[in-house]
Amino acid sequence: MSAKPIIAILGGTGDLGSGLAKRWIAAGYSVIIGSRSADKAQAFAKELGRGARGDDNVGAARSAEIVVLAVPFGSHEAILLEVKEAVQGKVLVDAAVPLVPPKVSVVQLPAEGSAAQIAQNLLGEGVRVVSAFHNVGATKLHAGGKADCDVLVFGNEKASRDIVIGLANEVASCGIDGGVLANSAAAEALTSVLIGINRRYKVPGAGIRITGLPTPTAS
Amino acid sequence: MSAKPIIAILGGTGDLGSGLAKRWIAAGYSVIIGSRSADKAQAFAKELGRGARGDDNVGAARSAEIVVLAVPFGSHEAILLEVKEAVQGKVLVDAAVPLVPPKVSVVQLPAEGSAAQIAQNLLGEGVRVVSAFHNVGATKLHAGGKADCDVLVFGNEKASRDIVIGLANEVASCGIDGGVLANSAAAEALTSVLIGINRRYKVPGAGIRITGLPTPTAS
Repeated sequence: MSAKPIIAILGGTGDLGSGLAKRWIAAGYSVIIGSRSADKAQAFAKELGRGARGDDNVGAARSAEIVVLAVPFGSHEAILLEVKEAVQGKVLVDAAVPLVPPKVSVVQLPAEGSAAQIAQNLLGEGVRVVSAFHNVGATKLHAGGKADCDVLVFGNEKASRDIVIGLANEVASCGIDGGVLANSAAAEALTSVLIGINRRYKVPGAGIRITGLPTPTAS
Repeated sequence: MSAKPIIAILGGTGDLGSGLAKRWIAAGYSVIIGSRSADKAQAFAKELGRGARGDDNVGAARSAEIVVLAVPFGSHEAILLEVKEAVQGKVLVDAAVPLVPPKVSVVQLPAEGSAAQIAQNLLGEGVRVVSAFHNVGATKLHAGGKADCDVLVFGNEKASRDIVIGLANEVASCGIDGGVLANSAAAEALTSVLIGINRRYKVPGAGIRITGLPTPTAS
């Protein structure tokens, strides 16, 4: 357990962030909940128990080895700028999806191609941006189980992708190597498609699974 | 059987087009193979048997009620312009994926957002463009079976999407309503991701399945 990296989850009191926190804590990771308000983060960390800590986003990012960004797209850029110095040299896992209200079920990718590319551009090459968890419904995580879907993981460096694939295997069926960061556009766009499918098919959390793989690819 | 629409498959001698043709012929549809060369199309149609016909792309498009475009992105625009008049008032099913060689496993969506949107822009509002079949590996179709994946179907009109969902149910596990045409970007981008997964995981035809749906949604 001591060999496991310390994970900060910025937006850790939100729906996805708190769901990820529960699963990683259960798997023995040290988790720091980050929030705009250190008080709120600390109160929530106390609720989570099992050694979870809370801090404001910058403090959480500073104390962690891996920083997960689970905030709405509307706060994405502001929080990236806020933590830019604190995440240099680290792996930043971006779960942001570029939804454009009110038409969140219509794909509207940003000019940069993806939210992940925006993060990489803002943070610079000193940060290894990996993008993942775009299509994970948080409901199952809160219920104490793994999400019934695969997690596509994107990043420009295989070693960083592999770290996040390991984290994904703790929260969903299987983390899958999706290739370079530019490919994040596929999973980000898919989120809008899945939101629409939830509405049309009246289901709470449609996800995706990759077919045609020989066996579970989880390590 | 007589109530089933006549389907033209432009690029019908290619890998995906011929695989789709085999499945739809087996399901009792009248299929016209379209190709640049009418001779080549007719020879292949003869091989297929069971009433299949062959013609050049324009002739095939003219004689059909539903026109499926299964050509490489490099020929996409030229063939659309060629058949523009012949497809007015019809459903055009676009399976084109905007791959940019040599980096076909890197998502590189066009400025218009998707190949499907390019088709709609070129053909005008008189044509109901529906996009689908981006992520279907043709191998299983040629082996006589259905592809082990779901097919996301996009279009701006529900009635047209439903027609193509019916066609998708004949060739893959399940056709799924993916919403408006702009959402085609998700499935088109995913094709590059799946090409990369095929390489990295050494599999012949990775696909996707939508999880979280209550039961098979095939009609």
